[in-house]
Order: sequence, then structure tokens, then C-alpha cells
Amino acid sequence: MSPVEPPAQAEMTRRGLTRLFAPKSIAVVGASADPEKAGGALMTVLAGFPGAIYPINRSADMIGGKTAYPDVDSTPEPADLAIVAVPPSAVLGVLEQSAHAGVGAAVICTGGFAEAGEEGAALQHQIHELSRRTGLRVLGPNTSGFVAPWQLVHATFMPGVAELRPGHVAIIAQSGGVNLAASFMTAQRGLGLSLAVGIGNAVDVDFADVLDHVASDPTTHAVALHLEGVADGRRLMAAIRRTAAIKPVVAMKVGRSDIGEFAQSHTGAMVGDWAVAKAALEQAGAVVVENLTDLVDAVAVLSTTRMRPGARSGIGIVTGQAGPGLIITDALAAAGIDVPALLPETKSVIESLLPPLTYQANPVDTGRPGETFVEILQAVGNDPGIDGMIVYALQEHGTRDLVETLERDAHSLPPTVFVTGGPGAEIASQRAQLADKGIWTVDAPDRGAFAMDCLVTDARVRHLHAAAVDEHAGDQSTNRPGAEEAAMQIEGLTGHGNLDEAQGKAVLQAIGFATPRRVVCDETTDVEAAFVRLAKPVVVKLLDAEVTHKSAVGGVHLNVSTEADLQVALAATGAATSGTPRWLVEEQVGDGVELILGGVRDGSFGATVALGAGGTGVEWGQPPIVRTAPLTRAGAEEAVASMPPALLDAMGPSAVKELADLVHRLGALLATHPEVREIDVNPLRSTDQGLVALDAVIVLDDATGAGPERNQP
Amino acid sequence: MSPVEPPAQAEMTRRGLTRLFAPKSIAVVGASADPEKAGGALMTVLAGFPGAIYPINRSADMIGGKTAYPDVDSTPEPADLAIVAVPPSAVLGVLEQSAHAGVGAAVICTGGFAEAGEEGAALQHQIHELSRRTGLRVLGPNTSGFVAPWQLVHATFMPGVAELRPGHVAIIAQSGGVNLAASFMTAQRGLGLSLAVGIGNAVDVDFADVLDHVASDPTTHAVALHLEGVADGRRLMAAIRRTAAIKPVVAMKVGRSDIGEFAQSHTGAMVGDWAVAKAALEQAGAVVVENLTDLVDAVAVLSTTRMRPGARSGIGIVTGQAGPGLIITDALAAAGIDVPALLPETKSVIESLLPPLTYQANPVDTGRPGETFVEILQAVGNDPGIDGMIVYALQEHGTRDLVETLERDAHSLPPTVFVTGGPGAEIASQRAQLADKGIWTVDAPDRGAFAMDCLVTDARVRHLHAAAVDEHAGDQSTNRPGAEEAAMQIEGLTGHGNLDEAQGKAVLQAIGFATPRRVVCDETTDVEAAFVRLAKPVVVKLLDAEVTHKSAVGGVHLNVSTEADLQVALAATGAATSGTPRWLVEEQVGDGVELILGGVRDGSFGATVALGAGGTGVEWGQPPIVRTAPLTRAGAEEAVASMPPALLDAMGPSAVKELADLVHRLGALLATHPEVREIDVNPLRSTDQGLVALDAVIVLDDATGAGPERNQP
Repeated sequence: MSPVEPPAQAEMTRRGLTRLFAPKSIAVVGASADPEKAGGALMTVLAGFPGAIYPINRSADMIGGKTAYPDVDSTPEPADLAIVAVPPSAVLGVLEQSAHAGVGAAVICTGGFAEAGEEGAALQHQIHELSRRTGLRVLGPNTSGFVAPWQLVHATFMPGVAELRPGHVAIIAQSGGVNLAASFMTAQRGLGLSLAVGIGNAVDVDFADVLDHVASDPTTHAVALHLEGVADGRRLMAAIRRTAAIKPVVAMKVGRSDIGEFAQSHTGAMVGDWAVAKAALEQAGAVVVENLTDLVDAVAVLSTTRMRPGARSGIGIVTGQAGPGLIITDALAAAGIDVPALLPETKSVIESLLPPLTYQANPVDTGRPGETFVEILQAVGNDPGIDGMIVYALQEHGTRDLVETLERDAHSLPPTVFVTGGPGAEIASQRAQLADKGIWTVDAPDRGAFAMDCLVTDARVRHLHAAAVDEHAGDQSTNRPGAEEAAMQIEGLTGHGNLDEAQGKAVLQAIGFATPRRVVCDETTDVEAAFVRLAKPVVVKLLDAEVTHKSAVGGVHLNVSTEADLQVALAATGAATSGTPRWLVEEQVGDGVELILGGVRDGSFGATVALGAGGTGVEWGQPPIVRTAPLTRAGAEEAVASMPPALLDAMGPSAVKELADLVHRLGALLATHPEVREIDVNPLRSTDQGLVALDAVIVLDDATGAGPERNQP
Repeated sequence: MSPVEPPAQAEMTRRGLTRLFAPKSIAVVGASADPEKAGGALMTVLAGFPGAIYPINRSADMIGGKTAYPDVDSTPEPADLAIVAVPPSAVLGVLEQSAHAGVGAAVICTGGFAEAGEEGAALQHQIHELSRRTGLRVLGPNTSGFVAPWQLVHATFMPGVAELRPGHVAIIAQSGGVNLAASFMTAQRGLGLSLAVGIGNAVDVDFADVLDHVASDPTTHAVALHLEGVADGRRLMAAIRRTAAIKPVVAMKVGRSDIGEFAQSHTGAMVGDWAVAKAALEQAGAVVVENLTDLVDAVAVLSTTRMRPGARSGIGIVTGQAGPGLIITDALAAAGIDVPALLPETKSVIESLLPPLTYQANPVDTGRPGETFVEILQAVGNDPGIDGMIVYALQEHGTRDLVETLERDAHSLPPTVFVTGGPGAEIASQRAQLADKGIWTVDAPDRGAFAMDCLVTDARVRHLHAAAVDEHAGDQSTNRPGAEEAAMQIEGLTGHGNLDEAQGKAVLQAIGFATPRRVVCDETTDVEAAFVRLAKPVVVKLLDAEVTHKSAVGGVHLNVSTEADLQVALAATGAATSGTPRWLVEEQVGDGVELILGGVRDGSFGATVALGAGGTGVEWGQPPIVRTAPLTRAGAEEAVASMPPALLDAMGPSAVKELADLVHRLGALLATHPEVREIDVNPLRSTDQGLVALDAVIVLDDATGAGPERNQP
């Protein structure tokens, strides 16, 4: 609901979260001596906390060997953090008292709020109000809490969390259960955590708050986000942008499919459009993955190493066994990753190190790793076309020496993923050692390729971000092309709902779209006059803002070349409306590849543009490319380049360039004109004379600015 | 190269492989006392073998405490198995001697054969000849060998393999390195192996041989295949079909991308068309996966449990935590898996077991697993719509009791996948216990969904197989519809190369395709006569078998309604050829959805059919659906149902049914007429009058039966 935070506000947030995530004292509200109760489990889990623990319980003097207090007001000092384990109906009172006592933050582990129906939602709203009014930071409700291993804070019921080691991965999950699942999956990969948080219903502390916190936390090297619904997409995007500039952010968004009802019951949040969320998160700078295993694997490798920014990073493959090397090569190719040819100098070094039977291109197949294996890695790594490497070697006697050498010489290699098969215990012990040196180890060739894909994606996302910064540093006026002209066209039209095709085309034309020569006709005599003036054949169309599918009702007549044709067209199109017909007469445009280009406003992420193949492609072709608006010029080019290669080939380079320009312009229009609810240019035809908008549907909000768009970029 | 084996031959093969995979005595040719040498490593790895070991070495008396022999002829008895670790040039001599001595089988671990160039290929061919001539079974060359843990046979150099436990998973990999990698990945999942084989260059023992061996091996419960190139696809399909009828087969085919050069250097095999291989393997009854992790996870779950055959299995989801449950629900939906509503009776049982706040539909969200958790599982499992279940519960104190209860009550549940997060060691110890009871445990929600997808796919593949058996048991004549009529049309045409459009349409018509009314015209006067006879408008086409893209060269004239139009059409189409023009004049068919339907012969798998959207869909739409031919009627329906849903909707149910019939007929034609090299019906238009073939390109082999098709089904 709020605009992008100014730095001062962000700083305050961070300070607030320090009392939450790095407390010196903790009050356990609802503490119990019974370990089967939530308040008892909490006392057990918190046993290792080095600061003061204040059990809060009206009827006990001592709990777990510690003096108990009747309420948060009675503790010797105000606790930094109150962990609240009381029934929903008692939560508000505890929070009031906490705020009054000077407690810094509260975690509400209890469920039964917005996810449980109207009564719970009302209660949750009161907590929200209290937090805003008093400044008490509140995590939850409906979360399993959080774990901060460096601080030995285990603010959750789950007993096993005390085993989670401190490390450099931060997890921010919407679901408390997923937070714990992801934490244990990270631990299984030999890595420790800097912070693992379940956001829950996010009555106060949300993703953006925690992102800003971990962005400035030096123990966090990479961040994993698990998202279900996103209440305020633009606020999230801004926080990701700030964080990703400093350290990698990986995001997984649930809801590829229609799972609305169950999701709603879970956190009370709508799941939203997955494709939009994916695009928005990537545009903000996150590496977006599709499932929890990928989330954990991605944040693991990115907490270990990171490649230099690049549009298309070049990867070197070195393998001790051909079969697994082939799987890696295949997977990288399927992911569209460059495995460039090596320089002749590099090849001759490799040739001097290997017997002639091995494959010495990229991939380099060394045969069983021998004594020269690390020298080969160094040769490949030194090739100027190589930004990162993936290495396969089975765990054999020689490989054990290899791991030692790798550890020693890792500093002379580019970011490297090491894939190895063999007895599990050996691999696990090596993994953490190599990770400390910036080499990430996985045990399956395909997972190695996935890890490399994450490094490449992170490098690409950073490159796009750098390009955007350069662009913004340049001429500002190029970033909102045609917006002023469009404003003049739209002015006076607001409140109209659907624009008619002529009005819509005027807006498109104002921002730089080519449109056919045309005449608006109120009378049949106007049509006849227009027919004489325009080049033949013409198209005669019914002009009616309320008829958005004109062709389907017979409102479009093509190939009108003669006076006789014209009379037929007039009669037919006139019959397609029950009111008094108006017409648009246009010069007919030659054949060409048909595209669609449009934009709508997403409930979570605001303005979006979509582009893709037109015609039957809209119905059963590849899904369109979606991006949030505005796009940078580089972002628009990237969006166009993501369309099917055969379609780009059919359009040709000049139309591809023109399309990127139009995507850029349309994005700017949507971003600067919140009163534009929807635009559809269908079809946009690629002709010999360039791209021409053959139809235009534009829908304005009834009252300017009061539409579904809640947050402007 | 050979046809499907008769049972007697298969039985002989199996006996041959028993001496290979379950030897009572082993000769190690090239044995060495130096553990750094291959022949030394082998002696170490074989230390646990309970049978006789005969080290073969010309210059040593004793190796590793065992009497050494100068050659395989000198051992006290002919060894069942010779493991050959000598340089390539010495291999042939060793094999000759082995065959002469009565050795049963040889493993050649050495590389340097077909994968290394012409000289190696010639040597390999000699080994092939020797094997065929003498009956000596040969595994390899260019393989890391095999592991048979039940028999304590570790016929490979890799030292760690002695740690691999006996169990119920069989691995058959083209690459020795992949075989070892997959074996250790299986072990990490807590499972043992019945057999793990690297096929290598497959000079004799191939996938089909080993499949038949493990099919009849009672210790094998499921089989994983890793394939690079496939030399003889039909032989492989037949072996998969035999095996999958008894136990699950999972297959991974390398080569989604163009990785030809490196692949060729690896095993000397061509990688082939991935989409064809995927379809063929599935049609044969395998569960096809895309990467090695998936291969191991799939064979793991399928070695534990298997669902009853079904076209669309219904899955119940029960979760102790909503967030991970949501991830599972989303992933199942994305995989197109049914999560059906529960019966009212089931719901009322669940209602009586759960507090009101939880979500009680399918998925059932229990909140933290309580005492009634297993009862809820039983209630869901008893619902008649539920064929399998996926369960999520975090590892907490209560969950440990749950695991014990699950173990005890597993017999009363349908096939179940148990997903649990928590400390790794605990999960690992539970996994094997639960697996023995038919419940497979994984630690990530998405991997749980994947395991369930494998069970569902296996059930679907078996259902399709059952439908095919029923079909074959029915009227045989329906399985090759129209084949005889087509034969009459094709007779006399062979040797012609490309058929012209009129000949092609006659063939299509013979097998049941509708085609436009048409007249073949040798002279312009014929065209004029035809124009009078046919309904207007007509299409005038150049008739020339050598011009396959008629439209592109101006050889097609549409909308010919008047005599004037006709003269223009004649002149234009005549100008499109340098020779004497002939014409095809056709009644023009009304508009409709455009499709393509065709068939080619794949180098590995023989006859295939392809179907998909026509028009621009061919170029930048969804990729076409590919299947090997012949298809069963059910298989043809399944292929059509795999097209984009919006396209099926646009066609309507009657055209969908008709298309399945035509796919069935086209498949039968391709399967029974090896002289037909290629067929393209582009477009096949879905009109008000049904599907009409508007064009037909048919290419025949120059000499009947001498085409690239090597193996008929």
C-alpha cells in the first residue's frame, strides 16, 4: 500500500528488525513446564539462547529453571522480543501490554486469524492497527517463527532446529512449514543459515522488511524467497532490487496451477498470476526457480560463488568420465547456455597435457582424472571466453587428491561447480570444505547443470540491471517515449470506459505506432466520400466502443475494391448493430506475420505488457511473453528476444527492432497512465512497411487513478 | 538388426547372461599386484567375491594371495567370467583363448574402440564377429563394467563399489561412468541394487539382453535405463515391452539438444531424435524422465510400490503443514494429475477426526499431525476415488510416532509417498524401513510430487498397454485399417520417389482420408472442362511431383470463380514450371482449423507419425506430437488428446474423433508399407464437413523395402 520507502524509513525498519532477529532478551508468553505444550516446547528449543529468557505465566514462579513473571510488564527490563504462544483471543492483550512495556518485537506463532475466516481477519486487522500505532514490530501470526543460528535464537516450536548450524544462507518463506523444510534441506547440503523466517500472515513484518534486514546483514551471502500470494508486488520488487544489487536473491513462487481455494485457506492471500510474478521477480533481479529443491540448490550455490555480470556467460566443461559429461553438456545446451569453443592457445596447452584419445574441445574429456587434471582446469579457466566452469569426476583414489588440489588452487579458477559421484559420506565431508573456497559440489550431473544455470542467470540478471542503470543515467526523456503525446490524446477521454477503435488508434499513434490511413464516418455518405479518397482496397468496420469482437458479429468487411463491394459492406456492417451505425473506413494493409501486443494491470504487480504470436498463436501457440511495465529499452529488447526464434526469423531484424521499440513505448504509457486499465493491439502486423496496428482496444478506468493499480513504480 | 527374438532365443540369452552376471568363478586377465594399475584395482575390488578368482598374468606366480595362471586356458576349470584389463591390441587374442577354453562371458573394460576412430572400429567389429561365431558373451568394450551386489561381484575398477548394498533396483546404463554415478545416487537414497551395468559400446550384450535378464531376475523390482544413442530401437522397444509387463521400467534418453560431436566421440553412437525416442520408450511401456536425478528417484519409488493400472489415477493429499501441502498440490496440478473430491462419507469421517479450523477437502490439511493422523490417512485411502496418496509431515516428536504407526499400518493404505522435512539422519534411517513396507520417503515436497507423477505415469502406461492387448484380442482387421486398399494404390508406383499430389491423395483416400473433388489435367482444355464440371470456386494447382512447395513458387491459385480468373490462374501456374505444365483442378474447401499430419522413418525407431497445429503453428507454435507407428486405436486417441487443449476445443469432438481415426490409419499404412519413406498432409483442414486433406506429399523409396527402415514391428 505504501510507495517505495525512502532510505530513512528503510533504516528504521532495519533497526526494528534487529530487536526481532538479534534480541538480547526474550519473553516467552504462555511459557509452560509441560514440553508437550507449545509454550513448553519453546522453552526447550530456546535452551541454548545466551541472553535473558523471561517465561511469562500467571500461575508459575519458575519454569525450566528460570524465574517466571505474570506479564511482560513485570520483567526486570523490557524484553527485545516476545514470543507469543497463547490462544488467538488473548493475543491482542499481550501485544498491547508488550508495546506499553517497551518490548521491541513480537512473534505470533498462533494460527486462527485471516486464514480462518471473518472473525480471525478482524482480529488480525486489530493487530495490524496496533503495530502501526505503537511501532511494535510483529512477525506473523500463523507462522512457525524463525531461527537465527548465529544468535542462537530458535523462536519456533520445532525441536530439531537447534541442530541447524550458523552459515550464510537466509531463507524468507511465506509458510512456516516451508521455512523449516527449506532450512533442513539447506543443512543436508552441508550449509548453515544466517536467518530462516516464516512470514505467515504478514500483519506487519513482510518480505520487503526482512529483505532489507538481510541485505545489510554481513553474515548473509544469498537469500531464498518462498512466495505464495504477493500483497504488494511493487514494494517487494523494490526490496529485491535493493538486495540483489548487493547479494544474490533466489525466488520461488507457488501457484503455477489453479490452487486458489486451498491457498486462500492457508494464508488468506490470493495466489495471483504466476507468469506475471515470475517476470516481475526476474525484472527486479531475482533468480526465479520453480520448486523447493531448486530454491535450496540455487541459494546454496549462489551463497558460495557468483559469476561476473554478463549477457551470455561462457561455460567451460571438464569431465573425467564422458557419460556424465555428456549429460551436463546436454543439460546446459537445453538451458540455452553458451559452451564456447576454446582459443587455439588454450587447446594447445590442453593437448600437451592429455593423451590423444581424449576429446579436447569444450567439453574437455580427460578420461579418468590424472595428475594433470587441475592444470587442465586452469588452462580452461584462463581462456578469456570462459566465465565459469563445471567439472565432473567420479570419487576414486586419484580424485581424492584432486579435491585437495582443488581446495588449494580454487583461487586461480573462475567460479566452479564440481560434480562428483561416489560414496555419500565422502562427498558430504568435501562439500563444505570446497564451498568455503568458492567451489560448490553436487552429486548429480543434472544438478550441476542446474547450479551452473543459476550462476548464469544471476550474471544475466545483473547485466540487465547494469544496462538499466546506464540507460537511466542517459537521456531521461527516452525512458517515457511518447507519454506526453499520449496524455494529450487521453485527456478528456477519461471516464469513457472502452475507447472506440479510432480513439484507441489515435492514442497508439501518439506514442509511435503506425496505423492504417483511415476516416471516421457518421453517415453512409461519409463512407462513400472516404472510399473515393482512400487507396483501394479498403476495410469497412463498424465503429462502436462496446463491440470489442467486431469480426465475430460481422462488423468487419475486407477487400472492398468497388462501389458494389462498398454497398454490400455498408449493409452487412450496419446489420451488426442494433443502434445507429458509425464506421471506420481504412486502407487495407498487406499480408504479413501477425503479432499481439497488449497490457493489463495485475492485482499484485500492477502494469504489465504481453507480446506474442497473433492469429491462432494466441489460442494454441506458445504462451505470450509477459513483463511488468515500465521496461527499460534493454528489457524490451530482452522481452522480444524471448519470443519463438522462428517467429523472430519470419519477422526479420528490422521488425524485431521496431517491436522492441513499441514494447518500450507501450510499457511507458501503461506506467505513466494509471487510468489506462487495458490495451490490446491485436493484430499488430509485420508488413513490408514495418509494424502496423490493425486494431486497438483500450479500456480506461471510469475515474482516473481509481483503478486496480495500487502502486506505481 | 535382428527381428524380435522368439522365446527360445530369449531364454538362451538369459542363460548366457547368468554366467556373466552371476559367475561362480572369475578370471582377471591382466591381474596385477600393483593397486595403482587397473588389473590391481580389480583384484582389490573383487576381494569379497565368494567364488574362485583366477589372476591371469604371464610373469607372476601369486597375485593378492591367489595362484596366478599364464592364460585362461590354464585355469583348473573354465572361468564363468573373464574380466579383461589389457590394452586394446591384446583384447582379441584373449577373447579367442577364452572362447576356446569354454569361458562363458567376458567384460572388456578397456576403451579405444569404435569411440576412438576407424582402427578401433575395425577391432571392435572383429570382437563382434568372434562373439557371434563362438557364442562367447561380451560386455563392452569401453565400459566401467558391472556390479552384482547379491553375488558380491564387483567387476569394475572403482574401489567404492564394494560399499553398494544388495537390493531391488537394476541400472542399465550406456555409459560406465553414469552407471557408477547412478549406483551411488541410489545408495544415497537408502536403497540397494540387484545389478548395475555399463553397456559401453555394446559389441554383443545390449540393452535388450540385459533387460530380459533382469526381467526374469526375482531380486529386481524395477529397472532404470540410461540411453545415449539407440542402435536398434524396435529391438529395445520389444524388450522394454516384455519387461514392463512384469516390473516397472524407467528410461532417461540423453540428447535433448544438439550434442552430436561429443556424443559420437563417446560411444560412437548417433544420439538421434529425442522426441521420437521419448515417444517410443513410453509407447513400449517405460516411464520416461529427463535427467539422472529423476531417473534414480523414479526407479527408487517404483521399486518400492506400484499403483493399479489406470487412465487417470486419483491422488489423495494429506498434509500436516499447509505450506508444503500447497507446493505438492501445485506440482501435482502442473503435472496434470487428478486430485479428486472425496466422497461425502469420507468427508464426514475426516470431520469427526479433525478440529473445525483445518481444510478438509482434498488436500486434507490436518494441522500438526496429531493422534488421528493415521486414521485420516486410512479414511482418505479407503475413498474409492483414491488410487494413491501423498503425505506431508515435518519430523517432530509426534511425527516419529507417526512413522512407527505408518510402518505398522502400511498394508491398509494405497501406494503412498511420504514427504518429510527434518534432520537428515533421522529421515535416512526411516526411509529404508518404510520402503520395505511399500511407502517411499522423500525430503522435498516437489520431489514427493515427482515420485507420485512416476507412479501415475506407470499406472497410465500399463493401462494403455492393457487397452492395446484388448484391442489386439478383438477384430484383427481393425488394426491395419485401409492397408490393403493403400497397397493397391501404391502397387506399381514404387521406384517413383516423390508421388505427385494426385497420386498422394489417391493413397490417402484409399486409407480413409477425405479429399476435395478434383480432376487431373494434362492440357489447358482439360482444365477448362474440369472448371465447368466442378463446383466453384476451384483451386488450380501445378501438378508436379518434383515441386513440393507449390505455393512458394506461384503454383497454386485460389478462389477461381470465373472464366477470367481461370485464364489468369492457368498463365500464372504455367509460369511456375520450366517444363510442360500439368494441373490439378480441385473444388475449393471452406475455411477451418488447419492441422498437419505426417510420418517419417527415424534412424533408430523406424516409422513415426507426427500431428499438430498447421499454418504458423508449424513454424512457431507448440512442437508436434510424435509417436512410433503403428499405433493402437487407444494410442492414437491418446496422441490426439496430447495436442493443445484450445486446438482440440476449436476442432470440436467430432473432428477430434475423426483425427484419431486418421492417425490410426496413417500409422498402419507406415507400419505395413516400409517403401513409404515420408508422408505429409499439410494442411489437413477441419471443416464443417469433417477433416479434408488439402495437400499430400508422399515419398517412396527407390527400391521397395530398401529404405532406412531396418526393423519392422
